[in-house]
Amino acid sequence: MKPDVQADLPSAVPPELAGKIVISVDAMGSDKGPAAVVAGCAMSAKKNPDIGFILHGREAELRPLVVKRHLLDRCIIRDAAEVVTMDAKPSVVMRRGKDTSMWSAIESVRNGEATVAVSCGNTGALMAISMVRLRKLPGVNRPAIACLWPSRNDTGYAVMLDVGADIRADERDLLQYALMGASYARNGLSIERPRIGLLNVGTEEHKGHPELKAAQGLIAEAAPHSDFEYVGYVEGGDIPRGKADVIVTDGFTGNVALKTAEGTASLIRELLGQAFRHTILSRIAALLAVTSLRRLAKRTDPRRVNGGVFLGLNGTIVKSHGSADATGVSAAIKLAFQLAQAGFSDRLAARVASTSAPRQDMP
Amino acid sequence: MKPDVQADLPSAVPPELAGKIVISVDAMGSDKGPAAVVAGCAMSAKKNPDIGFILHGREAELRPLVVKRHLLDRCIIRDAAEVVTMDAKPSVVMRRGKDTSMWSAIESVRNGEATVAVSCGNTGALMAISMVRLRKLPGVNRPAIACLWPSRNDTGYAVMLDVGADIRADERDLLQYALMGASYARNGLSIERPRIGLLNVGTEEHKGHPELKAAQGLIAEAAPHSDFEYVGYVEGGDIPRGKADVIVTDGFTGNVALKTAEGTASLIRELLGQAFRHTILSRIAALLAVTSLRRLAKRTDPRRVNGGVFLGLNGTIVKSHGSADATGVSAAIKLAFQLAQAGFSDRLAARVASTSAPRQDMP
Repeated sequence: MKPDVQADLPSAVPPELAGKIVISVDAMGSDKGPAAVVAGCAMSAKKNPDIGFILHGREAELRPLVVKRHLLDRCIIRDAAEVVTMDAKPSVVMRRGKDTSMWSAIESVRNGEATVAVSCGNTGALMAISMVRLRKLPGVNRPAIACLWPSRNDTGYAVMLDVGADIRADERDLLQYALMGASYARNGLSIERPRIGLLNVGTEEHKGHPELKAAQGLIAEAAPHSDFEYVGYVEGGDIPRGKADVIVTDGFTGNVALKTAEGTASLIRELLGQAFRHTILSRIAALLAVTSLRRLAKRTDPRRVNGGVFLGLNGTIVKSHGSADATGVSAAIKLAFQLAQAGFSDRLAARVASTSAPRQDMP
Repeated sequence: MKPDVQADLPSAVPPELAGKIVISVDAMGSDKGPAAVVAGCAMSAKKNPDIGFILHGREAELRPLVVKRHLLDRCIIRDAAEVVTMDAKPSVVMRRGKDTSMWSAIESVRNGEATVAVSCGNTGALMAISMVRLRKLPGVNRPAIACLWPSRNDTGYAVMLDVGADIRADERDLLQYALMGASYARNGLSIERPRIGLLNVGTEEHKGHPELKAAQGLIAEAAPHSDFEYVGYVEGGDIPRGKADVIVTDGFTGNVALKTAEGTASLIRELLGQAFRHTILSRIAALLAVTSLRRLAKRTDPRRVNGGVFLGLNGTIVKSHGSADATGVSAAIKLAFQLAQAGFSDRLAARVASTSAPRQDMP
């Protein structure tokens, strides 16, 4: 009878999008409104004929935008009356958010229509709904949010996690972060054997909290049979230095580090602008250097590296910046597509399961 | 008999430097050697006729440098045969470091010849010797290292502490950091009523670790009678934003944030350099913009903001960057002079004592 049970599962791609890799998109979460999100979908659809979308939100608003962007044959619209606001409390959304576009977008991952969902909305609410509806992978205690940092690596980016899913992490959580981060680097950045570093205040053995020392032991032990290399402790300055492809830390430290780096980059951009407006000569220089400066801005603008990824759930969620414009949304969709195409959700689940098995045997 | 006991105390400025504000300087700790340190002293001496120095290190090496820089009448040399290396273990230096220039420099603060010492040497060893020889101020559980950040503040800088004295801090330590940071901002940056922020992963009340919530209560309660304003939680991005003059955090988070910001600034400088070398047009632009770019480099170069300050001890220690050149050393000495002139060590002690009194009454 097993095949029948399988057939009854609410799985698989809707027939209208057969043959496509389907991304579930919360169309209402962006600060810039649904027009920016649909425009981002259209940019991605144009570049990649294999993408299909399930768009969640107010159908009356979305349909004209979809028609305007010639996306009718590439997407399905799922009507959702409500929108999660940026200041909504996660606990409230979890109880009363069933009619929101965010909830509906996650539901498409839950029922197997898509393996990855994209939302620009409220991070806390997105994580809360994802936890409740998708549930944690067996063997994962704390899901994590992974983000990409500009780095001197060959790929130009390093993965860091957790950057804010949970403020705490013990040594076993940090081991899971290492495994999940390695899997993400393999599938999202095509790094076959990622180098993992553990964030600390120094690289000497005796430094740091006791859970870091314990995590160091667990990660080093897991490395040989997990296709990653453990490079030891790394410091804050090593994150952009390319010393590791994946930087593992707790969500408190990771969140502070991420926001500090963004704040620093933003201050330098501002001072750079001031420097170039300072004299007539420097204004001329700015005109001559305009393309070079644009190239720099592109490389260091956090919006270009758009998409924090929720790891450790049954399904993958890409969180785009709330202020993302069409280009930003398109970048998040590109990442979601790449992960969906690689079968990332299943691979990650298998990886975590294989390594958590010995753990379950432990007292 | 009390006056006699007082007269016997090994206090006060050596007669050769009578009338000067005396800074005790570890002349051997810099990566660039004693020549850079003595050159830095000479720069400061030239700018400021009120400074006198006690230089600690190998007299045979120091004397010719002092003669060359015309510093003979502005300083005393204290011969110390040994040097603390950058990779020396703090615990080892604490046991066997009595003959080092670093130990000797701290000893001058201990015996009252100077109220502030400057060293470019090994941070861990410097903190360890300072703890043992100067002892903690009554009421202080964990001393802290405070540093200055480029900021959008009126003064151009914000104070952050702890950036690495201790990896842990409970709510009472964080309160002490707030008091000490406020005192530093008042005496070092001349901010009469500093705005204090507590570093967290969000500004909402419910965010963060339990000790942060407890610290928030204590700091807010202390604010009205401590001449500072408490502005609430701040995030990583707020550090350079000018939202607070003093940012309070534990030494683990503070150290990661500081090094992450330095690493980010360094990556952007590198990418900026690449951008300007990219085309002939951008090379010409770089030539035209050279003074503007230098101004920017000056503003964002961490070496210009030279001097982490150890707070919470009987005496003040300024830790200069190990790689500081004469300009960097001179910046650290300027800060040390400013603090010594303001009577900072005594003021800080009084401030901590007045606020820790109610604490000692508590169960």
